Amino acid sequence: MSASSKSKTNPGHYFEDFQLDQEIVHATPRTITEGDQALYMALYGSRFPLHCSAEMAMDIGFDDMPLEDLLVFHIVFGKSVPDISLNAVANLGYAECVFGVPVYAGDTLRATSRVIGLKENSNRKTGVVYVRTTGVNQDDEVVVDFVRWVMVRKREAGDDSLPLMPPVLPDVMDVVPAADLIVPDDLDLNDYDPELVGQADLWDDYAVGEKIDHQTGMTLEEAEHQMATRLYQNTAKVHFNQFAQAQGPVGRRLVYGGHIISLARAMSFNGLANGFRLAAINAGSHTNPSFAGDTIHAWTEVLDKMELPDRSDVGALRLRTVAVKDQDCEDFPYRDEDGVYLGSVVLDLDYTVLIPRRT
Amino acid sequence: MSASSKSKTNPGHYFEDFQLDQEIVHATPRTITEGDQALYMALYGSRFPLHCSAEMAMDIGFDDMPLEDLLVFHIVFGKSVPDISLNAVANLGYAECVFGVPVYAGDTLRATSRVIGLKENSNRKTGVVYVRTTGVNQDDEVVVDFVRWVMVRKREAGDDSLPLMPPVLPDVMDVVPAADLIVPDDLDLNDYDPELVGQADLWDDYAVGEKIDHQTGMTLEEAEHQMATRLYQNTAKVHFNQFAQAQGPVGRRLVYGGHIISLARAMSFNGLANGFRLAAINAGSHTNPSFAGDTIHAWTEVLDKMELPDRSDVGALRLRTVAVKDQDCEDFPYRDEDGVYLGSVVLDLDYTVLIPRRT
Amino acid sequence: MSASSKSKTNPGHYFEDFQLDQEIVHATPRTITEGDQALYMALYGSRFPLHCSAEMAMDIGFDDMPLEDLLVFHIVFGKSVPDISLNAVANLGYAECVFGVPVYAGDTLRATSRVIGLKENSNRKTGVVYVRTTGVNQDDEVVVDFVRWVMVRKREAGDDSLPLMPPVLPDVMDVVPAADLIVPDDLDLNDYDPELVGQADLWDDYAVGEKIDHQTGMTLEEAEHQMATRLYQNTAKVHFNQFAQAQGPVGRRLVYGGHIISLARAMSFNGLANGFRLAAINAGSHTNPSFAGDTIHAWTEVLDKMELPDRSDVGALRLRTVAVKDQDCEDFPYRDEDGVYLGSVVLDLDYTVLIPRRT
Repeated sequence: MSASSKSKTNPGHYFEDFQLDQEIVHATPRTITEGDQALYMALYGSRFPLHCSAEMAMDIGFDDMPLEDLLVFHIVFGKSVPDISLNAVANLGYAECVFGVPVYAGDTLRATSRVIGLKENSNRKTGVVYVRTTGVNQDDEVVVDFVRWVMVRKREAGDDSLPLMPPVLPDVMDVVPAADLIVPDDLDLNDYDPELVGQADLWDDYAVGEKIDHQTGMTLEEAEHQMATRLYQNTAKVHFNQFAQAQGPVGRRLVYGGHIISLARAMSFNGLANGFRLAAINAGSHTNPSFAGDTIHAWTEVLDKMELPDRSDVGALRLRTVAVKDQDCEDFPYRDEDGVYLGSVVLDLDYTVLIPRRT
Repeated sequence: MSASSKSKTNPGHYFEDFQLDQEIVHATPRTITEGDQALYMALYGSRFPLHCSAEMAMDIGFDDMPLEDLLVFHIVFGKSVPDISLNAVANLGYAECVFGVPVYAGDTLRATSRVIGLKENSNRKTGVVYVRTTGVNQDDEVVVDFVRWVMVRKREAGDDSLPLMPPVLPDVMDVVPAADLIVPDDLDLNDYDPELVGQADLWDDYAVGEKIDHQTGMTLEEAEHQMATRLYQNTAKVHFNQFAQAQGPVGRRLVYGGHIISLARAMSFNGLANGFRLAAINAGSHTNPSFAGDTIHAWTEVLDKMELPDRSDVGALRLRTVAVKDQDCEDFPYRDEDGVYLGSVVLDLDYTVLIPRRT
Repeated sequence: MSASSKSKTNPGHYFEDFQLDQEIVHATPRTITEGDQALYMALYGSRFPLHCSAEMAMDIGFDDMPLEDLLVFHIVFGKSVPDISLNAVANLGYAECVFGVPVYAGDTLRATSRVIGLKENSNRKTGVVYVRTTGVNQDDEVVVDFVRWVMVRKREAGDDSLPLMPPVLPDVMDVVPAADLIVPDDLDLNDYDPELVGQADLWDDYAVGEKIDHQTGMTLEEAEHQMATRLYQNTAKVHFNQFAQAQGPVGRRLVYGGHIISLARAMSFNGLANGFRLAAINAGSHTNPSFAGDTIHAWTEVLDKMELPDRSDVGALRLRTVAVKDQDCEDFPYRDEDGVYLGSVVLDLDYTVLIPRRT
C-alpha cells in the first residue's frame, strides 16, 4: 500500500464545521518557563518592572515574577489557531479580553473555545464565527479569557437561491467595566517605588484625552516575528511561508498582529511606565498589514480613568494605543477626514491597564 | 617577543591524526536549561506535548518535562565538531543513533567519540573517518549514541605510488532493531490523552507505505540558523562566515543540516502528533544544501511498524521524513526515474518514533 | 481636553542636566535567568565552561553556574542608557571596569551612576560627561563597576563670548592593578580539568607580546543584534530604528558596540579557552561602526601577565582583543603607519582575564 493520507493532518475547521455552543479543546498544553520570558524580552525590549524584577513583583504582593500578560495572551491565542482560524480569511476583532490570575514560570496552560455566534455571509462562500477562548492554568484557574471573531471559508460555496441561515450574534461589551477587571490577590502597592521605574506619574497624573508619543521606533525583521510566532505555537501559514506568499496577492510574509501589539505595549513604557499590568483588551483592529522592514512607532491616548471597587491604592486607565509604520508619532497619526485609518496605521488597540494611585 | 602563536588554536584533526580505537573527549560540558528549550521552540515551533507540557510529561511517567530529543542530539553532535569535522569535506552519513535516558533542565552533558573505522581515499588527499559519538549526563547515563562518518582532508597529500592503507570499515546496522530501542523507565501511557494533542491516530492507525504531506512551509532565515547552530556550540565555519563563503564555490552560508532535521520533525506534528518521542535515527542524508530564503516543506512515509518487547501500550513507527525546498509536498517529491534525489530534496531521514498503541 | 503630553516621556538628560557628584538611580531592576544565559549562548556561541557547565562551575568552588560576565555588563550598561546617553553624540571610552561577585540565575540587578567629571566643549554645543556606573545584586553586593564617558548634547547652545565652565576631569587608571581584581570567594582550581575545555595552555604558557588569531568569522544579522540589545534593555535608538537611520548620514542601524565585544570574547575561546573569567576591562574603543552583513573576526595580543596576591593557583592575563570586519586576522590588522586604526578595525579592547596556573 502506498496511499496518501490526508485524513491524518489537520485541515482546520470550515464554516460548516462550527456549531453554536460547540466546545473545542485546543492542543497542546504548554508549560511556560523563564526561557519564554527571556525570549519575550529579547523580542520586544519590555521594561515593565513586574515582568523584569522578581524582587519588585514580590514587594507588591506577587508570589514571584509573573510572565508578561501578552505572552500569556499570545500562547492561548496561538493554541486556538489550528482549530479556529486555519481557514480564516480575516481576523475581524477581539473583545472582552480579561486577564485573570498571574502566570508564573512552571505553570502549564491549556485553552478551549466555545462557539458563541455564527453568521453566514451573503456571498455564501464565507461566514463569521464568534468564539470565546479561555486559557487556564494547571489548577483550572482562568489566566485569560476573550472573545474573537473571524471570517472563515466554507468548505463548499452554498446555493444562493436558498435562504441564509439566521445569524446568531453574541452580545459583546464595548468596554470591560471596572467591576469585571481582576486585581491580583494580595496586591499591595504600599512598597511600590516609582523611582525604580524611572517615571513619577501615577493614575492621578493622567487626564482623559491626553496623548503621549512614545518616541521610539523598532524595525521588524523576518527572523524576529517568525521566532515570536513559533514561540506562541501559532501555526497560521501566512507568517512563515515565503514560497506560498510569493504566489499570493501580498507577495510577502505577514507579521502576526500580536507581534505588533507586544511591540506597541513595550514602547508605551516610555510615558506609561507605571501601568504595570494589563487588565483587559476592550477592542483591537489590525488596520493594515505589517511586513519585515517596516519601522513601528506608537502613541497612546487616555480614553478613560476608572476607579476600582474597594481599592484606593490602584486605579485603571483605559487607553488607545495606535501603532504606526514608517512615520513618527509627533502628530498622532490616526484617521483621515472621512474617518478612514491612514495607510500607515497598523494597530488600533483599546485596552485597560492597572496603575498605582497616589495615596 | 611578538610571536604569532598558531599552536594555541585548535587546527582540528586531519585524516592522519585519527587512529583506530582512539578515544576523544570533546570540550566543553554543557548544562541544558529551560532557556535552551524555549529557544528550540522559538526556532522550530515544535508542538510535541512531551516537550511542551510538564503536566503531560509527568502524567505519563516522566520526572519532569524532558528536553527535545533533537536538541540533545545537536548539542552532543556540536561538541564533536571541533575534533571530528572541522576539516571535513563532507558529512557522509549517520547510523545507529539511539536515544537513551531523558534529559531534563539542569542536566549537564558531556560527549566523547571513538574512532571505529578509517578508509584512505584513492586520491590520497582525503579519507573517511567513522566515529561512534556518545553523550552522557552528569550521572554517566547515556543520553544519545550514534555513528557518523565524514570525509576529512589529509594534512599532506599522500604519495600515490605507495599502496593505500588497508581500510577498516565498521559493521553498521541499517536499522536499529526494536529490541535496542530504549523505552523510558516508568513510561505509563494509561493516562495519555490524545485529545490534548489534537489527533486521534495511534500506532494501530498507521499503515506501512502510508504517506503524509505535513502541509507546512517554513522559510529559513540567516539569524535563525545561526542562533540555532551557536546554541548547539557547533563551530563549523560554513554556517557563520559570509565573508569566507563569498569567496568559495557556494557563495552563501550553508544551513546546518541538523536545523533542517529539527524543522522537519516539528512540521511532522501535523499528521504524527502522537509520535511523542524519537527513539532512533537509522540513517540520514543531507541530499542538497539549504540556504536562507529557502522555504522548507516536509512529508513522511511509514516504513515499518514495530512492536516493542513486553509492551502492549506503546509501539514504534519507522519513518522516512523528506524535507523539500521551494516545492510543496502534495506529490511527495523524492527521486527521479534514475533514483537520483530531486534538486529540491534537502533531507532524507530514516528514523523511529515511539507512539501509543490502542489498548 | 486633547493635550499632547511630552512631560510624561523620558527626554534623556542634556549636558546642562548633569551635576558633579549627582547620583542617578536607573530604572528598572532586572532579574536574570537561565533564559538570558541561553539567549546569550545562541547569540554568541560562547563556550567558556564556567558559563556552560554547572558541574564544572561547582567543581571549582562556585555555588552554581554563574551567568556570563559580559551579559552582566551589558545589562548594567543598558540600564544607564536612558539616563546617561540617550542624547549622546558619541561613547568616548570605558575604564576601571571591575567584575565583582558572580551573578547567578535568579539574582536581581540594579544600577546607579554617579557623575564624576564634566567638561564643556569649546563649540558650546556639547560636553563630556564622566560617570561611574555600579551594578549591584539583591544583597547590594557589587557585580560590576565601571567608568565611562560620553559626549552629550547641550539643551541649548551656549554663548561663546562667555568663558567655558572649568572642566573637572576624573583621575582614571590606565589598567586595573592586580590588587584590585576580584577573585571569586571559594575559587578552588585543584579540580580544574583542561581536558574538558579542550586546550592545555594555562597562565604559564602565555608570553607577553604573543599574538593569537582566533580563526573564526561571524556575520552580523539585524535580528541578532536587535534581540541582544533589547535583551539588555538598552534603549539607544540608533540600534533599532531603520526609518530614522535612513534619514541620517549613516543610513543604517548601528550595531551596539557591546555586541561586538561579546562576539570577540566568544571567538577568543579558540586560543584562550582557559581564560575562564573576565576580571576587568581596562579600556575599550569602538574604532569603527559595525553593520548587519559585516563578518567579524578577532585576534588577541597578550599585553601583560600578572600574579595575584596570595594565589599560586590562578593568575591574570592582560589582553588586547581586536575585532576586525571583512578581513581575516592572520596578519593581525590594527593600525596604519601613522598609528591610525585601519578602517576594518571595529574594536580595540584592553581587558584582564583570570586563568589557572600550573601548580
